[in-house]
Amino acid sequence: MNIIRNKMIDLKVLGDGRGNLIPIESGHDINFDIKRVYYLFGMQDGVVRGLHAHKKLKQLLVVTSGSCKVVLDNGLDKQEYVLSSPEKGLLIGPNTWREMSQFSQDCVVMVLASEHYDEGDYIRNYGDFLEYIADKTNG
Amino acid sequence: MNIIRNKMIDLKVLGDGRGNLIPIESGHDINFDIKRVYYLFGMQDGVVRGLHAHKKLKQLLVVTSGSCKVVLDNGLDKQEYVLSSPEKGLLIGPNTWREMSQFSQDCVVMVLASEHYDEGDYIRNYGDFLEYIADKTNG
Repeated sequence: MNIIRNKMIDLKVLGDGRGNLIPIESGHDINFDIKRVYYLFGMQDGVVRGLHAHKKLKQLLVVTSGSCKVVLDNGLDKQEYVLSSPEKGLLIGPNTWREMSQFSQDCVVMVLASEHYDEGDYIRNYGDFLEYIADKTNG
Repeated sequence: MNIIRNKMIDLKVLGDGRGNLIPIESGHDINFDIKRVYYLFGMQDGVVRGLHAHKKLKQLLVVTSGSCKVVLDNGLDKQEYVLSSPEKGLLIGPNTWREMSQFSQDCVVMVLASEHYDEGDYIRNYGDFLEYIADKTNG
């Protein structure tokens, strides 16, 4: 199992005197078709979001306004990212526990996901996540 | 030809003490598959963007931060919208000339589009647009 499939990427900015445009073509600029888009806003001080992993779903996370912290955890190692630019995207693969925190008041997080919503694809308990990873690693 | 297919919609907000989440499922919450996502930011004062129509492409436009004005023109009538909430989406059908202006400094516009980028789908001259619409209406 390739458990580390997360990475920060530089997005292609089409900028001119009118401002900036970043296009993301489904299946081209990212290696999956976009089945679901969601965005987060209005997070209160001290809130932690995420706290789950996916068995299958891949996603690209972009902080289009403001900033926040994202910690990704593959069951062995944790990596911390500070996202504060609409020009950066964080690709998050399956089998990754994610925690998002330190949202600025103006923070908006846009997520492009490879799957439609499916509760069965979520692992919402950290102990279950570690067991799931251990099974995969040993299996 | 149904030339008026534009409308403002209320998006489904999943809100709780942690903040708000708005999900848009490709082909479910909008009546097309999402082939391309793009977003605009860093617009300068006085800038006008858009200034084109599409022959086929449909899109959902959401102002996730800040505000701007959008004028939609079907060749016969113009309609003006002020977008200033991440909870509102503007569905824009084909055969619609669009002009975007009055961007606040913090404005971010997210667009979910039904087609991959195809220059052949754009009409970039307003005179050509009016001719195209007249041909369609009479044809």
